[in-house]
Amino acid sequence: MIKVDLNCDIGESFGNYKLNDEQILPHITSANIACGFHAGDPFILYETVRLAKKYKISVGAHPSFPDLLGFGRREMKFTEDEVYQLVLYQIGAIYSVCKAQNVELHHVKPHGALYNMAAKDSMLARAISKAIKAFDSNLILYGLANSKMKDAASECNIPFASEVFADRTYNDDGSLVSRNNSNAVFENTQDAINQAIKIVTTQSVKTITGKTIPIQADTICLHSDSQIAVRLASELNSEFKKRNVHILPIGVS
Amino acid sequence: MIKVDLNCDIGESFGNYKLNDEQILPHITSANIACGFHAGDPFILYETVRLAKKYKISVGAHPSFPDLLGFGRREMKFTEDEVYQLVLYQIGAIYSVCKAQNVELHHVKPHGALYNMAAKDSMLARAISKAIKAFDSNLILYGLANSKMKDAASECNIPFASEVFADRTYNDDGSLVSRNNSNAVFENTQDAINQAIKIVTTQSVKTITGKTIPIQADTICLHSDSQIAVRLASELNSEFKKRNVHILPIGVS
Amino acid sequence: MIKVDLNCDIGESFGNYKLNDEQILPHITSANIACGFHAGDPFILYETVRLAKKYKISVGAHPSFPDLLGFGRREMKFTEDEVYQLVLYQIGAIYSVCKAQNVELHHVKPHGALYNMAAKDSMLARAISKAIKAFDSNLILYGLANSKMKDAASECNIPFASEVFADRTYNDDGSLVSRNNSNAVFENTQDAINQAIKIVTTQSVKTITGKTIPIQADTICLHSDSQIAVRLASELNSEFKKRNVHILPIGVS
Amino acid sequence: MIKVDLNCDIGESFGNYKLNDEQILPHITSANIACGFHAGDPFILYETVRLAKKYKISVGAHPSFPDLLGFGRREMKFTEDEVYQLVLYQIGAIYSVCKAQNVELHHVKPHGALYNMAAKDSMLARAISKAIKAFDSNLILYGLANSKMKDAASECNIPFASEVFADRTYNDDGSLVSRNNSNAVFENTQDAINQAIKIVTTQSVKTITGKTIPIQADTICLHSDSQIAVRLASELNSEFKKRNVHILPIGVS
Repeated sequence: MIKVDLNCDIGESFGNYKLNDEQILPHITSANIACGFHAGDPFILYETVRLAKKYKISVGAHPSFPDLLGFGRREMKFTEDEVYQLVLYQIGAIYSVCKAQNVELHHVKPHGALYNMAAKDSMLARAISKAIKAFDSNLILYGLANSKMKDAASECNIPFASEVFADRTYNDDGSLVSRNNSNAVFENTQDAINQAIKIVTTQSVKTITGKTIPIQADTICLHSDSQIAVRLASELNSEFKKRNVHILPIGVS
Repeated sequence: MIKVDLNCDIGESFGNYKLNDEQILPHITSANIACGFHAGDPFILYETVRLAKKYKISVGAHPSFPDLLGFGRREMKFTEDEVYQLVLYQIGAIYSVCKAQNVELHHVKPHGALYNMAAKDSMLARAISKAIKAFDSNLILYGLANSKMKDAASECNIPFASEVFADRTYNDDGSLVSRNNSNAVFENTQDAINQAIKIVTTQSVKTITGKTIPIQADTICLHSDSQIAVRLASELNSEFKKRNVHILPIGVS
Repeated sequence: MIKVDLNCDIGESFGNYKLNDEQILPHITSANIACGFHAGDPFILYETVRLAKKYKISVGAHPSFPDLLGFGRREMKFTEDEVYQLVLYQIGAIYSVCKAQNVELHHVKPHGALYNMAAKDSMLARAISKAIKAFDSNLILYGLANSKMKDAASECNIPFASEVFADRTYNDDGSLVSRNNSNAVFENTQDAINQAIKIVTTQSVKTITGKTIPIQADTICLHSDSQIAVRLASELNSEFKKRNVHILPIGVS
Repeated sequence: MIKVDLNCDIGESFGNYKLNDEQILPHITSANIACGFHAGDPFILYETVRLAKKYKISVGAHPSFPDLLGFGRREMKFTEDEVYQLVLYQIGAIYSVCKAQNVELHHVKPHGALYNMAAKDSMLARAISKAIKAFDSNLILYGLANSKMKDAASECNIPFASEVFADRTYNDDGSLVSRNNSNAVFENTQDAINQAIKIVTTQSVKTITGKTIPIQADTICLHSDSQIAVRLASELNSEFKKRNVHILPIGVS
């Protein structure tokens, strides 16, 4: 049996600025919910956990650098201890909101610059893993396949889910092609669907040089922010069903 | 056996702005730790929990309105749901920091304007109590003696600790004399010590009109922010010991 | 010659949260630009001034309480000196952005809770007027017609523009019907257009009790946040042109 | 006639967190005042300009990255346009506060990470210089002697003041020894005084390798944050007076 999780970042509204998350929810199996540092606030967070519960989606923390102005996408310098404490704080914030609504906290997926930097930087990856371990060693770290985050999770003995991207292209070493390159993203929905199917069914991906490399695909990252994203999510569901790929949260069989 | 708890607000540094909390710690039995909304940040919070653990002090959350500029002392309008969610978020944040350090979260004491407003406003008092209840119904709400917070705790069936002030004067109805009045605060340390001893040993207080009214004194609020505060805390300890008053955290006997 | 100004709040994006302001710009004659306290940031502010210049619209500061989470709509308590200093800071911020682009700063319109509170509170109205006076006594204060802001502007000897609302209903004393009432807003675009035409051409308005009261209408407040708003703005332009009402910024004849 | 300016960063309180700036003011000739991005707030800013006026000190803007948590000392990535807009906003904010108090804005000195990064990075140095030029080309840029900021000021045709440090050691290329090195700072006040006198009277400095290199010293950076800082400032004043070095703001003769 082949299975895969579909995850999406949600709860990224702030105050008066409302993004419509609800449309993507019927199409995904886990949600990474902003904890107030790059987006989200205590009110948005509460409502988003309520929505995730309504759609029976696995809830994860989506911690970030403290950077509302930059939406957590700006590189910032923090020490290992600081990143550990930033992540711990945010896990706690969402944990209490989950507990009040009888929702289990399921995973942690770092956001934006923290995710990208931790994929390559062992120190950051370790800081994140140690925060998870210190809080609850059953929480699953969602991180880039083949990245330093996988190594750190293993070192800390916490579960890890390898994340792949339908619409991003890959280098030969398994890293994502930088968004500075023109060929970093598939503009065409069908190309993204094709890549996702190939990755999940063969656990391999064709890189930009044409090489085929192995890649583990526990979960696919989707986006919530447009009609195109919702359509891609919906079509991926159909295509996987046709191919008997089971769409399930990590840890469920 | 007469006993009393001595509590103090700590962890109220922020970023580069450091207050020296450590000096008060040998003299108190419980600490209310800022959670990042009026003061504190994830780094300060972690370090402060570490210090409280070192001195074997009961740790409480010290949630506030989100108002760093006003240090949580500015009145702000929030709905019941919003206050519930603000408090819940902050309890979670400190809970995870405690959990990572094997420290038990013991109580919740609202800060500043939230404390003062909730003392008189049933809606706010209820919002706070419900947040505590939703997270862990064993957490003790620290609130003004004879206030709406006591009623709300009772209604929500959570434990309540009546807080009294050594250096603040009282009205006949048991409320504190407003700081807008010139006689609101005892400037003289000895007056504060005398009032604290009287309240704790007789469970009554002499009001500004000269009347004696009953008051429950589970915990006395001390301050951390000056040498005078530390001396008052130290002298209170001596005076209580002389009188066989046991200085113990709430719930310990 | 009858003339009127059409104003709109713009530049209320923040960081990654983008509102589309540009669509309303062809239909208005003055813009109130957020200065970073309830919305806007230094990047958004710069771009918004650029857009206003492109469409030859009079630029005003749109200062607010410091409340990004509440979008400046939450009542907060500040002293007269504090409000004076908050407004002064924000006027300066937009002034330099204007100066760098050779744009003249034309007016100041308080935002949200500051606007609503200052309409009724002489102290707040005076604080705002004094900040304007201290910076540049030629700047025009845009405020609610018949409000304390008009009195304060007169007292401080700064120019004042009486603002009216197309889609809000009025009490007999000239104040706006509170949004807590079901009849506070005209849902129907045609009703809003009719009221705007009546106010501008007769300098009077029919209140919710059916009475007709005098009202000065120097400028009409429009919104930018929906297709409906843009259509209303566009239709108002047509209707005024039909009736030979000149749509001009304040101070231009 | 030899002359030199003594500058100091002040107004770096925030909200309830008060630093005592006033003690240094009698000993300096120009002040770099925080504009609210790394420290300061509209109330502190107003009060600090008032103090600077009282002591007849030249007032400068002290703009920073937007980083209250890191006190502007954390490296952050911004584009040239963004830095230009960040600096412009902050210059405007302090300008209006000065204007309201009839104080002339005299110079701009970048803070913390922005200062350090712009000393080495032409792009950042240019962004700062262009913001100054766009606002008022008579404002003086205070920057590290021998740095990219000097080049950028020259390129933009704005006045530049070369800043030197009494208590920091120098590399052979004129850059400061990194604080990561143990010999970066003179712990001894007399060493700092000696270096300041040597730099000012000979326009040269002895580097950590023992070499003597030329250095321009228009202004010396002092600190405000301790009794030691105040004593150093006071002693420097005496020593310069003994040697007929005139302590004057830049541009005054």
